[in-house]
Amino acid sequence: MSSTKSKPKKLGIVLFPGFETLDVFGPVEMWGFIDDYEVIMVSEKGGLVRSSQGHDTLSRYSFADAPQLEILMIPGGQGTRREVDSAAMLGFLREQDRGTEWTTSVCTGSAVLAKAGLLKNRKATSNKLAWKWATSQSPDVDWQPHARWVVDGKYVTSSGVSAGTDMALGLIEKIHGRERAQFIARSAEYIWNDSPGNDPYAV
Amino acid sequence: MSSTKSKPKKLGIVLFPGFETLDVFGPVEMWGFIDDYEVIMVSEKGGLVRSSQGHDTLSRYSFADAPQLEILMIPGGQGTRREVDSAAMLGFLREQDRGTEWTTSVCTGSAVLAKAGLLKNRKATSNKLAWKWATSQSPDVDWQPHARWVVDGKYVTSSGVSAGTDMALGLIEKIHGRERAQFIARSAEYIWNDSPGNDPYAV
Repeated sequence: MSSTKSKPKKLGIVLFPGFETLDVFGPVEMWGFIDDYEVIMVSEKGGLVRSSQGHDTLSRYSFADAPQLEILMIPGGQGTRREVDSAAMLGFLREQDRGTEWTTSVCTGSAVLAKAGLLKNRKATSNKLAWKWATSQSPDVDWQPHARWVVDGKYVTSSGVSAGTDMALGLIEKIHGRERAQFIARSAEYIWNDSPGNDPYAV
Repeated sequence: MSSTKSKPKKLGIVLFPGFETLDVFGPVEMWGFIDDYEVIMVSEKGGLVRSSQGHDTLSRYSFADAPQLEILMIPGGQGTRREVDSAAMLGFLREQDRGTEWTTSVCTGSAVLAKAGLLKNRKATSNKLAWKWATSQSPDVDWQPHARWVVDGKYVTSSGVSAGTDMALGLIEKIHGRERAQFIARSAEYIWNDSPGNDPYAV
């Protein structure tokens, strides 16, 4: 069981109705091995949030009572089609981003970050099957069609769904070193695609 | 959003406190693409169940009110250390198994199936880092130390954590054909290890 006492930093995952399951829980699995980050679930009003796959996860924090996050992560999923027009969502992302160490997304989560204006003049990627829609959310982003994930400054964006798990280990490698990331992959019997440029699903 | 009306069959995932996150949600992601199975969460008493990683998922069914499942899946996680001694859990697995088309496990979930007596004289595998403990739950199982996943009759067991996602696609291939499994992997931008004998973490 995870103890919050020894985890001074917060990685907050922003949930919304219709989030994609594996976008969230692949990274949750990998970050669960890291002692100094507590992973918390945040949503607009707190409480249960239903995924695209129909399952409910509890978010203990609302936008109003969420603490400042060191790492922000927004997943993708069908729900992003609505979230790009949500003033509450875009406002929360902008406000948190001012204080984050890392602002990250999985899949079409980058469309929401882009719409919030946070990826302006940054290199970023997104889901390859929803490419046209995602990239249309902002012309000011240097969209990368061939990338498993992309790091530009503190902004880290991944390609679709499963790519988020590879990105999570990539960010763990950046913060905690390669040995730790490899140890976690081994512990989870995960076959890590550890190269952000190795994208078998490139547009 | 998934609609239950068009999904006559049930794939039930048995949750317990301390289940491993990715054991559950890797398969949930992949099965979410299949129209004729509804994936439901079941636990002893129903309600919220906390994972090893500290997050709460809603189980809509208790052991008492769960319908007969066509596919049963039990995940692993630290909680299995307690579940192997739970009469309620072992009884539920035995009872469901009499009517399933497939009885499956991820990670140390196979230790619980073994303890329930359901893998007697069957080939099966389990988590490779918890191998000694898992296999000690029953000497009557033909434990396979080198396997990403194992199929023996209707019993399908996977190695640790991430292997469950490969197994899920393997079972989808068995039921719905290779093309469908490959389509799902592509849709989730998942790099599928599609060979049950390819086990990079073999004991």
